[in-house]
Amino acid sequence: MRKLGVIGIGNVGVTVAYTLVSQGIVDELVMIDTNDKKVLAEKLDFEDAMPRLPYHTKIKIQDYAALSDADVVITAFGDIEASIKTGNRFAEFKINSKNAVEVGTKLKEVGFKGVLINISNPCDAITTILQRETGLPKERVFGTGTFLDTARMQHVVGDYLNQDSRNVDGFVLGEHGNSQFTAWSTVRVNNKPLAEVISLDEIASLDGKPSEGAWIVASGKGYTSYAIATCGVRLAQAVMSDAKLFAPASVYVEEFGTYLGYPAIIGANGAEKVVPLELTAEEVEKLNESVAYIKEHVEQLG
Amino acid sequence: MRKLGVIGIGNVGVTVAYTLVSQGIVDELVMIDTNDKKVLAEKLDFEDAMPRLPYHTKIKIQDYAALSDADVVITAFGDIEASIKTGNRFAEFKINSKNAVEVGTKLKEVGFKGVLINISNPCDAITTILQRETGLPKERVFGTGTFLDTARMQHVVGDYLNQDSRNVDGFVLGEHGNSQFTAWSTVRVNNKPLAEVISLDEIASLDGKPSEGAWIVASGKGYTSYAIATCGVRLAQAVMSDAKLFAPASVYVEEFGTYLGYPAIIGANGAEKVVPLELTAEEVEKLNESVAYIKEHVEQLG
Amino acid sequence: MRKLGVIGIGNVGVTVAYTLVSQGIVDELVMIDTNDKKVLAEKLDFEDAMPRLPYHTKIKIQDYAALSDADVVITAFGDIEASIKTGNRFAEFKINSKNAVEVGTKLKEVGFKGVLINISNPCDAITTILQRETGLPKERVFGTGTFLDTARMQHVVGDYLNQDSRNVDGFVLGEHGNSQFTAWSTVRVNNKPLAEVISLDEIASLDGKPSEGAWIVASGKGYTSYAIATCGVRLAQAVMSDAKLFAPASVYVEEFGTYLGYPAIIGANGAEKVVPLELTAEEVEKLNESVAYIKEHVEQLG
Amino acid sequence: MRKLGVIGIGNVGVTVAYTLVSQGIVDELVMIDTNDKKVLAEKLDFEDAMPRLPYHTKIKIQDYAALSDADVVITAFGDIEASIKTGNRFAEFKINSKNAVEVGTKLKEVGFKGVLINISNPCDAITTILQRETGLPKERVFGTGTFLDTARMQHVVGDYLNQDSRNVDGFVLGEHGNSQFTAWSTVRVNNKPLAEVISLDEIASLDGKPSEGAWIVASGKGYTSYAIATCGVRLAQAVMSDAKLFAPASVYVEEFGTYLGYPAIIGANGAEKVVPLELTAEEVEKLNESVAYIKEHVEQLG
Repeated sequence: MRKLGVIGIGNVGVTVAYTLVSQGIVDELVMIDTNDKKVLAEKLDFEDAMPRLPYHTKIKIQDYAALSDADVVITAFGDIEASIKTGNRFAEFKINSKNAVEVGTKLKEVGFKGVLINISNPCDAITTILQRETGLPKERVFGTGTFLDTARMQHVVGDYLNQDSRNVDGFVLGEHGNSQFTAWSTVRVNNKPLAEVISLDEIASLDGKPSEGAWIVASGKGYTSYAIATCGVRLAQAVMSDAKLFAPASVYVEEFGTYLGYPAIIGANGAEKVVPLELTAEEVEKLNESVAYIKEHVEQLG
Repeated sequence: MRKLGVIGIGNVGVTVAYTLVSQGIVDELVMIDTNDKKVLAEKLDFEDAMPRLPYHTKIKIQDYAALSDADVVITAFGDIEASIKTGNRFAEFKINSKNAVEVGTKLKEVGFKGVLINISNPCDAITTILQRETGLPKERVFGTGTFLDTARMQHVVGDYLNQDSRNVDGFVLGEHGNSQFTAWSTVRVNNKPLAEVISLDEIASLDGKPSEGAWIVASGKGYTSYAIATCGVRLAQAVMSDAKLFAPASVYVEEFGTYLGYPAIIGANGAEKVVPLELTAEEVEKLNESVAYIKEHVEQLG
Repeated sequence: MRKLGVIGIGNVGVTVAYTLVSQGIVDELVMIDTNDKKVLAEKLDFEDAMPRLPYHTKIKIQDYAALSDADVVITAFGDIEASIKTGNRFAEFKINSKNAVEVGTKLKEVGFKGVLINISNPCDAITTILQRETGLPKERVFGTGTFLDTARMQHVVGDYLNQDSRNVDGFVLGEHGNSQFTAWSTVRVNNKPLAEVISLDEIASLDGKPSEGAWIVASGKGYTSYAIATCGVRLAQAVMSDAKLFAPASVYVEEFGTYLGYPAIIGANGAEKVVPLELTAEEVEKLNESVAYIKEHVEQLG
Repeated sequence: MRKLGVIGIGNVGVTVAYTLVSQGIVDELVMIDTNDKKVLAEKLDFEDAMPRLPYHTKIKIQDYAALSDADVVITAFGDIEASIKTGNRFAEFKINSKNAVEVGTKLKEVGFKGVLINISNPCDAITTILQRETGLPKERVFGTGTFLDTARMQHVVGDYLNQDSRNVDGFVLGEHGNSQFTAWSTVRVNNKPLAEVISLDEIASLDGKPSEGAWIVASGKGYTSYAIATCGVRLAQAVMSDAKLFAPASVYVEEFGTYLGYPAIIGANGAEKVVPLELTAEEVEKLNESVAYIKEHVEQLG
């Protein structure tokens, strides 16, 4: 029996939930939100859909105790308007760090022992707080982090080369925020290093594109939802099936002493193993800067 | 190759689109909306998701010409706020009848010859206009109509009896609006007539529940989306696979001279065959009232 | 985490397994067979497919202990050649009753506490033995029984009326074997009693067709596999998701004191509730005959 | 509307068909085989499954004319026993080259203009004949080739490193047969060159493993089916959705003047573009040998 909780039923959380229900991915779904009416409305909307779906999903709402034996909890609370207005995901930090303390405490109280995947922003910092408050092992708490930004980079590079985005490999690293960067030395297209396919100038011209794309989405629809929800579901599936998926995510890297976007192996125990990368000197510097930025902001909260 | 268009990328239209993309149901998706930025944002959000999905979908936007050889077009334009505020789906009639004329005309101009499934409200009236303007045969244009209300009735009856909604059969008939009614004589649970399972008083107590549920959803989240989108996708799949699905929908019934919620066989040619029901005298009366209501309002527009 | 075992990796068992793996339905699959080489070959064939599938499934073989915490076990052992040659599924009884004792004993030894769905023939008798040997509550052990025969009846009636088989409701009851019968009084097409759609003579002409169809398949390919495996998977999904699916299956009916094909509610606890039918006098007689046949043959084994 | 034909309904062809039907991947499926009874049996078995499946598929058999507007045809005819007995897929060449001429001629006669994906062995040679006989452009005819062998290599390397096979990239090149080889210089694990992860001796020890695995499967179950069928379906989906999938397959490479296993971009027009690799001198030599072997055997037939 697959059991999953989603905490925070805004645009992202509800899309995660719909994806799970419409595809029969979980057997029991627990949805929790601060807005009772909203979460009830979404539950009823899903249940109205059920007679037209081939799969059955049991849906519970506002029930933390039901999470005690959940396989996975996805946190997607937040105040997206703050991030959009300021253009910085740290605008949500104050409110979300409070949320994270509350959510983490409750998960600990009910004895949740599964894997926690955090989407809430600023992703790396909120993941840090959630791990601390739940008291779960660091590998059992991780964030979507640059798993999304990497998808956007694949999209941008694919478009530029008139290739499908799935033919592009490589990583966006660091903060799921403004200090993130594409480690271009890791990017490959059709199994060739990108630098052998296009010039360094062309690569440079692509550098800011993934973030730009994100803001076009955010400003065009008021938020982003489908790509990030898809990333969350994919990671949850990797945990539930113990897929040993190699992917970048916001994982705790001992060497840096913080959560940040970095590749790891995702399985039943969460981000089971960090996979070290060999980066260029310039990339190492960027990574250090991003690490410093994350740590500084996390520490502000004491 | 499966090709489908969605016109109107609001909460419902975009959920239809996401369902198609996330499950690889169509090969090419054309999205059209009056808001260029919104539709571009949704396209990019889907494309950012693509590297994390097992299926590929080609997405085009704002391109009516691309619909000339589409298998199915789903119309989901509208001004949901008007409906919610007034509690009557006819509040959207003025704006949507204009939309319908425009959309129908354009589909005709590009030579669309597939099947048109309308979700826009008031569903039966707008379907009428779309059929007239596209000039397509009446069977090739139909609406979701009471396919959704029937699902809600199944949900309500299932909940009352502590049964899965899929174990409930039967029909909500007439207008997809306030004059709709459940034809309780057709409702069966686990293959037994409902009237043999519960008392007439109990049945009477359930009568308004499906609509109530809809308004709880609408007021709780500001609109309804997942159930209606699921209904739209299910009908589109029935058309694309020529499934000969027996289902209530807003179909043109010769006997009544209008579109209304009534059971039909859904296949590659649309609502291929209306399936006559034997109703009680009381139900016939309610149906006639609902038919009269629909016709009166459609005729207002001349 | 969804965990399922398949015991007996012949044509049916392996199709069940492939369906689960190719659609990502379970997270862990345990396959057991008397032929070590065969079961290893199937495991490797699945694992060779994995890099081309979007889902990950952990596959274990020949490991009864791994079934201790399985949600569902499907038994599909047998000697299909015996059944085909003789035209009677009881030809497999001797060998399969031995198998059932062995399998049931081992499941008990490892402490299996999930739900057991039996496909092995003669289905009702083998289900009886498996329940006895595992010592599981009667509801937690059931067979596919006439869930398959009912699908065949739907297929036959649908074809005759040029309707999709899914538009046909009703039941084949009794033994999953030669004494089974269609309870025509329960059969409905597009929500109308079949007897209102076609004549009694026509219905009579359809009576033997479902079984005939089965033997055309069996003689044409040497066995039947896809329909029965699909039935098994569908029931397993109903158990894993606690779907409360209303369906005929080989369930223990107190009134008759035996397992037989009869409608029930399928959920997390197995065949949770038998749903009594009102049959015609003639159908009751046929049911009694089928019950007598099953009991007589089960008792032969003492 | 998605339409696909499968020619040759043996163990592989029927698994392709079942995968399509059970997942609703195509709307119309045409199955053709020299054994009328077998193909009818499979059709009926699928149709018996249909009432238990959420998707509808129209199934036609023995109808070449129905392929005139198919999107894709998959050929899977053959005499697998010959290959297994001799340990060489060229044992099927004589019978399959006759089959290929017949099938190719018929596809030409009915005016098939879609994409032909060949599975029949020896894959590269039979693909050659099918292209010649159908008269289709070379890109519109290709074979599964080393798409399967590459999956097996990923499986072997993944197992050795205790990694998921999907975390392994790279290519098996050349003949889908004994002269194939893994181009180890292209193999990467978790985005690192394999040679940086394990020693050359270890790599050497893995060299024959993928083929060994294939023969363990073939001898254990008498044939291989699930991995190859999965490969065929995946390629067909890439064609139907114009996915621009980067994958090795048996494609025509101008430089070598023959079909052979080599990476290409798979889209709506078939193997749309060959993607040149930079190989080591040793690998180039092996590739030339494999090319020579294929050409020599193809030419034997004149």
